[in-house]
Amino acid sequence: MEINDTRLLRRIDELAAIGGRPDGGVTRLAFSEADRAGRDYVERVLRDRGLEVRIDAIGNLFGIVPGHADTGAIMAGSHTDTVVTGGRFDGALGVLAALEVAESLVDAGVTPDKPFIVASFVNEEGVRYMPDMMGSLFHCGSLSEAAVRAIAGADGTSIGDELDRWDMAGSGGINDLAPDAFVEVHIEQGPVLDLEKQPVACVRGVQGLAWYEVTVRGTANHAGTTPMETRHDAGATACDLMHELRRLPADVPGLRLTIGTVRHEPNLINVIPHTALFTIDVRHEDTATLQHTRHRIEALLDSHEDVHYRVLADAPAVTFDPGVRAAIDRAMDAEGLAPRTLISGAGHDAQILARTYRCGMVFVRTRDGVSHNVTEHARDEDVVAGARVLARTISDLLRQDSPPVAG
Amino acid sequence: MEINDTRLLRRIDELAAIGGRPDGGVTRLAFSEADRAGRDYVERVLRDRGLEVRIDAIGNLFGIVPGHADTGAIMAGSHTDTVVTGGRFDGALGVLAALEVAESLVDAGVTPDKPFIVASFVNEEGVRYMPDMMGSLFHCGSLSEAAVRAIAGADGTSIGDELDRWDMAGSGGINDLAPDAFVEVHIEQGPVLDLEKQPVACVRGVQGLAWYEVTVRGTANHAGTTPMETRHDAGATACDLMHELRRLPADVPGLRLTIGTVRHEPNLINVIPHTALFTIDVRHEDTATLQHTRHRIEALLDSHEDVHYRVLADAPAVTFDPGVRAAIDRAMDAEGLAPRTLISGAGHDAQILARTYRCGMVFVRTRDGVSHNVTEHARDEDVVAGARVLARTISDLLRQDSPPVAG
Repeated sequence: MEINDTRLLRRIDELAAIGGRPDGGVTRLAFSEADRAGRDYVERVLRDRGLEVRIDAIGNLFGIVPGHADTGAIMAGSHTDTVVTGGRFDGALGVLAALEVAESLVDAGVTPDKPFIVASFVNEEGVRYMPDMMGSLFHCGSLSEAAVRAIAGADGTSIGDELDRWDMAGSGGINDLAPDAFVEVHIEQGPVLDLEKQPVACVRGVQGLAWYEVTVRGTANHAGTTPMETRHDAGATACDLMHELRRLPADVPGLRLTIGTVRHEPNLINVIPHTALFTIDVRHEDTATLQHTRHRIEALLDSHEDVHYRVLADAPAVTFDPGVRAAIDRAMDAEGLAPRTLISGAGHDAQILARTYRCGMVFVRTRDGVSHNVTEHARDEDVVAGARVLARTISDLLRQDSPPVAG
Repeated sequence: MEINDTRLLRRIDELAAIGGRPDGGVTRLAFSEADRAGRDYVERVLRDRGLEVRIDAIGNLFGIVPGHADTGAIMAGSHTDTVVTGGRFDGALGVLAALEVAESLVDAGVTPDKPFIVASFVNEEGVRYMPDMMGSLFHCGSLSEAAVRAIAGADGTSIGDELDRWDMAGSGGINDLAPDAFVEVHIEQGPVLDLEKQPVACVRGVQGLAWYEVTVRGTANHAGTTPMETRHDAGATACDLMHELRRLPADVPGLRLTIGTVRHEPNLINVIPHTALFTIDVRHEDTATLQHTRHRIEALLDSHEDVHYRVLADAPAVTFDPGVRAAIDRAMDAEGLAPRTLISGAGHDAQILARTYRCGMVFVRTRDGVSHNVTEHARDEDVVAGARVLARTISDLLRQDSPPVAG
């Protein structure tokens, strides 16, 4: 199967114009008019190419290339919603690469052994309505239609009202096609490929993650009148803890630890803080290593009686399917690309869909690792390389004699 | 001279009722109606006792007990304005203790060798209008009448308008009395006397102070996708700096160092901060030691190219007059109090007036060191002890043969 590079790059430009911003970025918040228009663009192409379109109860879109068999479908896609000031590639690349594969199958006039499905899942970003990856959570049965419709946004709207307002809900689904595997092309959103000058990587899985909110209590006092030895300074205790926590990654290879937020109360220059708050974002691709590190973190926090913490998020690591990964590795090799695997640090639809299907992901080099930003950029040749790897992987998986399910 | 303990404690209650709050605290913001009413209370007592009252162009109040000589006046006092949710003692104690000394002189029917002046300076707190210690700054010629009148408050008012609105300005002054010395009784606002179970201390001087605002620059990146070794984390650099700075007091006896405010930008749990800001409040009673410590702080900050800082405040240490301190020490001894000296960590009118007059201060034990709070408290017996020490000190200084000016 040969994909059409020019068409793919044109489609990326055309979709980026929907919700396009003067600064070159894109705003297509989930369940907004622009989000509906973005989905319409994909739907129109699918229908123009004579493909069946199905839309489910919360707006997930599926376009179907029929196969000789009716089941064991192979699926590819991502999402077309964006953050408030998003870029042209996050999500869109995965949907349009899958669309290009479908168009190329139609162009070639061949009927694959199994159905191929282009999928675009709603509200992957979770900016307007929590949680993120909502479309894939619903698709896997982890969220009900009623639960999704009832979700309220920060702007006071509900998803149910917005689904009705923009006429985004349908009644279709793909259970009858008994999908077997899902492959997602996505920009890396990290700096590794750019630093290593590699266009594409096969993703091993998604890091497990825990978020903590830590609260340190002390006593507020005057900075001038309170001798050092009588202080009960919440900021000083927090500083010691943060300093110790920041040393953990040097001890645990592959650990990513971030202290993103810090706050003092009352936060005045001449008052010793009575409270210091900070958050910990800790991630590792190996669930056991992450658990062990979490025990160390919690033991440190528990050793101070003035310190309390809450777990704000807790997601286990996901390992992608060895068979799908092997298909991606073979595709990269056939494209003349050096072998390279990466772990995903961000959340993706494929990580949720891995609860139900064999999944894999292809990462495409991102300039400076920047995403969720209007300056987000992937080079044309990298976009094409990612789509070619996807096309080969899908061809591989669509063959009846595709390697058996492993792992 | 015998002071009237009951009268002093009653006056504290009566003044606390003006701007009194249901929670037991006091609100008399500078140049407000309540502030004017508080000053009126003191003025009325002075006039009732037959004393001359003078009010200067920005509302500072002076009550004069005439002496055999017309010059070389001895002055005592403080301020009657408060913070938003202030207590009954901060400022009021110093004015009312001085007023009690004046009343006791009148009661005794003696004419001292030199004039005695009760002084109440406006806007010591600097909450509504900056700078603090404004009344004493004007009195010493460090601020002009025009400059004070032009100062705008956070509420959009100007001091000039408020002076006119509440008819607080006069045209009096005390230069003709050629004041020689000023003594201020004040609550400690720190925990030392309470911890040591001592009612009163003689204040050696006021700590010098420097305030820094430190800005650390880095690069914002995704907490999940950015490997530790490629990060440029402003929060991590700030944490290292703060950890190092917090060790300085262990190295420099008497140093007080406070990191009161900390901020990350964008301050999101899963984003590496591109900017971290924090402040340093550093104080020492010895100007040379403070300067040496500041050089160390600045050398540390200068050693990081991502770090910039601004000096937000810079006040030299003030050492009170040895002669006045000796008079206070003698008074404490005569009252049967153990000798104790303290350094002031907070700013006071006496520290400004020391530019022009021989100055000293008497600190009174503050429960738990709490001030600028409705729960601020000083025991009756400590209030009386402080006023008795003031009365003896003033008697001493008012004598023609008072020890000569030293230092």
